[in-house]
Formats: sequence, structure tokens, C-alpha cells
Amino acid sequence: MGEESGGRPHVVIVGCGFGGLATAQSLADADVDVTIIDRANHHTFQPLLYQVATAGLNPSDIAQPIRHIVRKQRNARVLLDEVVGVDLDERTVQTLAGHIGYDYLVLATGATHSYFGHDEWAARAPGLKTIEDALDIRRRILLAFERAEATDDTVERRRLMTFVVVGAGPTGVELAGAVKEIATKTLRRDFRSIDTTTSEVILVEAAARVLGSFPQKLSESAERQLEKLGIDVRTSTLVTDIDAHGVTTEHGVIPAATVLWGAGVAASELGREVTDEPDRAGRVPVTDELALHGHRNVFVIGDLAKVVSGGVPVPGVAPAAQQGGQHVARCIGADLEHAPRPTFVYKDKGSLATIGRSKAVADLGPRLRFGGYVAWLIWWIVHIWSLIDFRSKLRAMSGWGWQYWTGRRNARLITGTVVRDAASSRQE
Amino acid sequence: MGEESGGRPHVVIVGCGFGGLATAQSLADADVDVTIIDRANHHTFQPLLYQVATAGLNPSDIAQPIRHIVRKQRNARVLLDEVVGVDLDERTVQTLAGHIGYDYLVLATGATHSYFGHDEWAARAPGLKTIEDALDIRRRILLAFERAEATDDTVERRRLMTFVVVGAGPTGVELAGAVKEIATKTLRRDFRSIDTTTSEVILVEAAARVLGSFPQKLSESAERQLEKLGIDVRTSTLVTDIDAHGVTTEHGVIPAATVLWGAGVAASELGREVTDEPDRAGRVPVTDELALHGHRNVFVIGDLAKVVSGGVPVPGVAPAAQQGGQHVARCIGADLEHAPRPTFVYKDKGSLATIGRSKAVADLGPRLRFGGYVAWLIWWIVHIWSLIDFRSKLRAMSGWGWQYWTGRRNARLITGTVVRDAASSRQE
Repeated sequence: MGEESGGRPHVVIVGCGFGGLATAQSLADADVDVTIIDRANHHTFQPLLYQVATAGLNPSDIAQPIRHIVRKQRNARVLLDEVVGVDLDERTVQTLAGHIGYDYLVLATGATHSYFGHDEWAARAPGLKTIEDALDIRRRILLAFERAEATDDTVERRRLMTFVVVGAGPTGVELAGAVKEIATKTLRRDFRSIDTTTSEVILVEAAARVLGSFPQKLSESAERQLEKLGIDVRTSTLVTDIDAHGVTTEHGVIPAATVLWGAGVAASELGREVTDEPDRAGRVPVTDELALHGHRNVFVIGDLAKVVSGGVPVPGVAPAAQQGGQHVARCIGADLEHAPRPTFVYKDKGSLATIGRSKAVADLGPRLRFGGYVAWLIWWIVHIWSLIDFRSKLRAMSGWGWQYWTGRRNARLITGTVVRDAASSRQE
Repeated sequence: MGEESGGRPHVVIVGCGFGGLATAQSLADADVDVTIIDRANHHTFQPLLYQVATAGLNPSDIAQPIRHIVRKQRNARVLLDEVVGVDLDERTVQTLAGHIGYDYLVLATGATHSYFGHDEWAARAPGLKTIEDALDIRRRILLAFERAEATDDTVERRRLMTFVVVGAGPTGVELAGAVKEIATKTLRRDFRSIDTTTSEVILVEAAARVLGSFPQKLSESAERQLEKLGIDVRTSTLVTDIDAHGVTTEHGVIPAATVLWGAGVAASELGREVTDEPDRAGRVPVTDELALHGHRNVFVIGDLAKVVSGGVPVPGVAPAAQQGGQHVARCIGADLEHAPRPTFVYKDKGSLATIGRSKAVADLGPRLRFGGYVAWLIWWIVHIWSLIDFRSKLRAMSGWGWQYWTGRRNARLITGTVVRDAASSRQE
């Protein structure tokens, strides 16, 4: 393995999501220098992003500066920068600021939204991957109610109070539930001209059932729970267009001012820099060590990687990314001791999806499947305790405890230049 | 007094800062209809904005949706809109969305930054009036450290680690203290290439002393406390230019990447709609009832008004705006009962300014002047208890309690498109 002149091996980690962070932390005691490059200054706890989008939590409740997380890890440094190219032969990455050499490269840049070839939908139907996405969605939801309050046109008011969520995977289900909760509980008494509880939330899914990655029974449970909340669930419904007026499906037009995207993801573009043969979702095929074929010193993990473990594809979930990061650290450790590398084995810890207060589904194995309150309790405990440090736990817990009892949401601020946006939209 | 056809008098309040909000709330039991128009959806507790700017508090800790604050006041409605014109004869205001008629008009749009004719400085040296301003300043401060970490140029690194605050009024003093605290305590262990404790914070003031509105002794106390924190206080120093490189004063050039503006304020532009004779700061002269001369049904309060009480000019502080709002409600109440209006009398409750942890000055009257820890305790108690509802109190208190003991700041997120900004700046 090549090393920097005279020094320890230099491990460059690109992207500090669950995979990148786990890699860095697992290398804390290794005899290497670690450089983490991310274009944000913070690590985001993505499973709770929908809470920021729906004004339940503040950005800082679920995000922490990367520097702060690794401040005690003396072999790690952090660069706020963006990697735009990889030279596998020269062993360098190109960033916006310059070039950085590596001995080991770990690509963990994750996934972004995919609009299935309809990139023009992106501006109409934002997805939820970053803090900025979450604040954008929050602004759209709250502004829709403001505009509904201001208009006298009953048709337009109905359109403004209709929210369509496209895609009924975990993110879509969470968003739909939270938007309904805002309308029926949080904002109930805030407006004068409109009754927010009459808002419509429509969850549109092309497949035959919601939460397609869960067992059939839990999908059914989730659908019942969604309908109990008053959400209009439309499965087997393909979206064919999204424009300023609303959403067009194969069954007709839904006039809706706010459309949220929970449907498709595609791997980060950076994958194309290291493979000519990404899969359909843009993911990079890797060896059973999680290395790039033909380049043992380049690892690809998390949502960017196409991983097979025990003959089964590994899902794009946080635990898989974390396990990938830990595995990479073990491989590098093996190299340093001139020992053989282990093979990656994915440990499935189950799946959880929340729908709203006291509503969720949990699949922890064939005999441990729950819907409703028990699933929600499990979901709550798992997510609170996964939050990355004590401080965040304390705040999120106290915030949520309060919210659970009162139905309030404490982060309902619209920031940015809202009025002129609102006015111009009224004139559309 | 004219009334809307068949209805109760319609009171239109423009701006929902301390003055506008106090007016609305004081009219809760009056037989009037109240419309609050603001271009933000939230009321901001401005005295703590500097804590948001310096990553100590979240926006939602110090701001609340206006709708939420007045949700139980059935005679009040809230419009997210911007008033761009006033027709005193027709008794209408023009907004971005249309026209709104009034019987009583209350103008409470406050003040904005003034760059003394150098509007080109605005982009280089942001002031602190809104949540957006605070988030912009936070981004600039944190990005400066990120860029310093990334550069190898020692001169540029020094420039990036130099922070100049222009103007040593309460806002300037608070900002300087908080920036110094970030550098010396909060970020101390987060970086590898730079030692943030060597950052320079320079407070530049044209007048001979800091906190010019305070008694001489307290100015001296504040200056000692600032210097104890390690802040370079330069009084009697006029700023003559601010550009991409730094700040030019009559005594020389200070290379500095981050410049914050705490120097001048000017009344909101809306004042020009109702008077041809604003004072030098753009404020609108009013009668001793706080009404516009010649228009008894139009009130002007808070920082937008030039008020004299007992022969003495009333300062542009939150308690004065609140007292103005309460007075307007009393005048309208008197009109409804065909009673004579009272004269406005300003009750001075003293002045407070904080400098940092355990450092402040308090002027509560000739025999109640404090500097240091006691002043800081008074400042802390007054501000916590002034926060607008129990929820905010609880959160801000717990957040601050934590921060006080640990020196941490929990809201250190950079949002927006930071990387490309950083990269392009490096190439400047």
C-alpha cells in the first residue's frame, strides 16, 4: 500500500453521513491520518429530517458540526469542501479548492432525489435529504396556509390547503403524517379565515401498497393508521406530471399548491468518477471487501454502493452505511498488520417507520412485527438514543416530550424573503 | 371617527415588533377589529438576536409566529404581507397583495441599519435586525474559521481570523463579546491548523467612549470588561471605508474578512409615506398623543416615531415601543367612550447591556448602577422573563444554563450554499 512520503497512510473520507462518520470514528485508534471532506459543516441525523421540515425540531437538534463530533480524535481533520473529481491512478481527489492526495479513499457521498427523468419536477416537488431541503419544505407548508388565509377565492383556497406527497416509502409516510398533524393540531387555532383541519393530505404511490420494503401485513397496518389520521392514500397511482397547478396522475388531476417528493433516490454523481458501470440507480458495484473492483485502496459504502451480502442486496439504510464504515476501518487495520481483510457481512437490525403521534410500524424479524403504539414507542426510543450526543438527546427529548403532550410545534418560523414570494405567487 | 360600513372600528397595525404587538394585545378587550400586517410570520425578541448570530440560540428560541401569539385574541387577524404605501385621505394602506381600509392606523415598522450614505458597505458589513440577518452573520463568522483552517497563507489566515465590529452601542458590544467567546471557548478544540484563541476581535467606535448612551462610569466599566475579554477597543476612531479586504479607519487599515455593523440605524422607509418632515434619522414627529400631526386616527410608535416626553427625547428601546403601543390602545379606548385622550408619558426603566458571560453593565437610576457579574445577573433575569411565552423561557433557560456551564454553543450550523461561496472567496 502506498504511503505519503515519510508519513502514515492518509485516509480521505468523502461525505460525512452515517457511513463516512462511522469510518472516521472507527479509525480513531488506527495509525493513519484521516481527512474528512464534506460540503456541509454538519453531520445530519437524516431519519429525523422530516421533523425539521414539519417544524417540530430545530436544525441544530438533529445536526452537529462535524468538527465538533471529531474534536477529540487527534488523527482526524475536517475540510469544508466539495470533491468534484477522482484520479485513481494519481491517487488524488480534486476539490473546489485544489487537489488532495490519498493512500486510502472512502467514498460515502450517499444518494440524492431522483425524478425519474423529470428533473423539471424538482423545483415543484422538493425532496428531503438536507437541512436546507427541510427548511425549504417547512417554508412551503407554512406559506401555503398563509396564502390560503389571504385569498377570497374558494377554489384557490382549496388548492392551497391540499398537500400531495409523492411516494409512500418511509419518508413519504412520515411527511404525510406530520403535515396532517400540523394542519389538524398545531395550527388549528392560528387562523381566522380558514379552518386548517379541513386541509387535505394525499399520499400517492405507484405501487400497490405503502411501505413496499416492509412485510405485507405491516403495509396494511400502516395504510389503516394513515387513513385513521385522515390521510387520503392512493396506491397503484402513477404520477405523470407535476406543474404549478398541481399533480397529474393516471387517474386525473389533483390541484395542489404544495407537492413533496418521497419517491425516488439516485446515488450521488461522484460514483461516475470511479466506475463506468453503475447500476440503474447510479450505485457503484463493490467487492465483498467493499472495495472498488481493481482498486483495493478505494472503498465505496452506504447509499453510493451496490452491496451484496449473503447473496442478498443490502438496503440503503443508516445501519448498513454504519456497518460499511466499520468494515472499512477493519480492512485498513488488517492491511496495516499485513493480515487478510475480512468479508463484509450485513447484520439486518430490522426496519421502522413512523406515521404520526403514537402511530408506526416495526419489523424486527418474522416474530417481532408491530403496528401502532408499541411500534411507535420502539421507533421513538431507537431514534432518540441514536442521536449523536447527549446534548442533542436532551434537547430533542425535551422538545418532543413537550410536543407530544401539547401537540405544539416549536419551530414554525418562515425564514427567507417570504412576502414577495407569497405576493408573486398570488399573481400567478 | 369613521367606521367601516356597519362594523366596529378597524385598527390596522403595521409591523409586529414590540410596539405593534403591545398595541394589538392592549386592544384585546376593545370593541374593535384588529388587523396586524407584518412581512415576517414571526415576532422577534430582538435583544437576543445577537445570540442567534453567534450560534448560542436557535431562531425559534427567540421568535414566535405572530398568529400563535394572538391565537386566542378573537378580534385580531394576522396578514403576512408588506405595506408599501399609505393614503391618508382615503384611509387605506397599499400592500403587495392589494388595498386595506382602516379607521385607525398604527405604524410600528421600526428601524433598519444606516450606513451613513455608504450603502455599498451593507453587503460587506451586515447589521443585526432580523432572524435572517442573524443567520447571515452566523454563517459569516463560522465560514471565516473554516477558510482560515483551509488556507496555508499566513497573512490571509490572520485576516480571516480578524473580526471587526463597527459601533460600540449595545448591539456592537454584545456582538464583540460573543464573537470573542466563540473563538476562545466554543471552537477552541474544533480545528487542527488554526488556534482559534488567537483570533482578534476589534471594536471600532467613532465616539470617545463605548456605550455612549450610558453614564460615563458604566462606559468605563464596559471598556474594562471588554478588554479583560481580550477585545481590542478602539474609540475615537472613524471608519472611512469597508471593502473586500477589510476596514479603513482614519488611523489606518485593518485587514479583516468579517465585519459586523452595529453603528447606525435609520427609521423604516414607510415614515416618508406619512410625513414630509422626518428628522435626520428618518423618524416621524408625533403629537403628545403619539398621533400624526393633523391625523388623529394615525399613530406612529416605537423606533419609527420621534417622541418627546417631559421635554426629553424618548430612546429607541423596546420598553418605549411597548409603552407607546399601550398608550395607543388607551387613546382608542378613550375615543370609543368619547373621553379625552391621555398624554403619553415615558417611564424610563433603565438600560442594560451585556458583554459576555458574567459581564454586563446596568443603569437602573443614579443610585443603581452596576458593572460585572451583578449587572449580568440582572440582564439575564430581565431578558429571560421578557421572552414572550413560557415555552421560549424554558428552552432558552435550559439552553443557556447548559451553555453557561460548558461554554458550548449548540446552534453552530452553517446553512445555505456554503462550499461554493467559500471556494470562490478563496479565489478572490
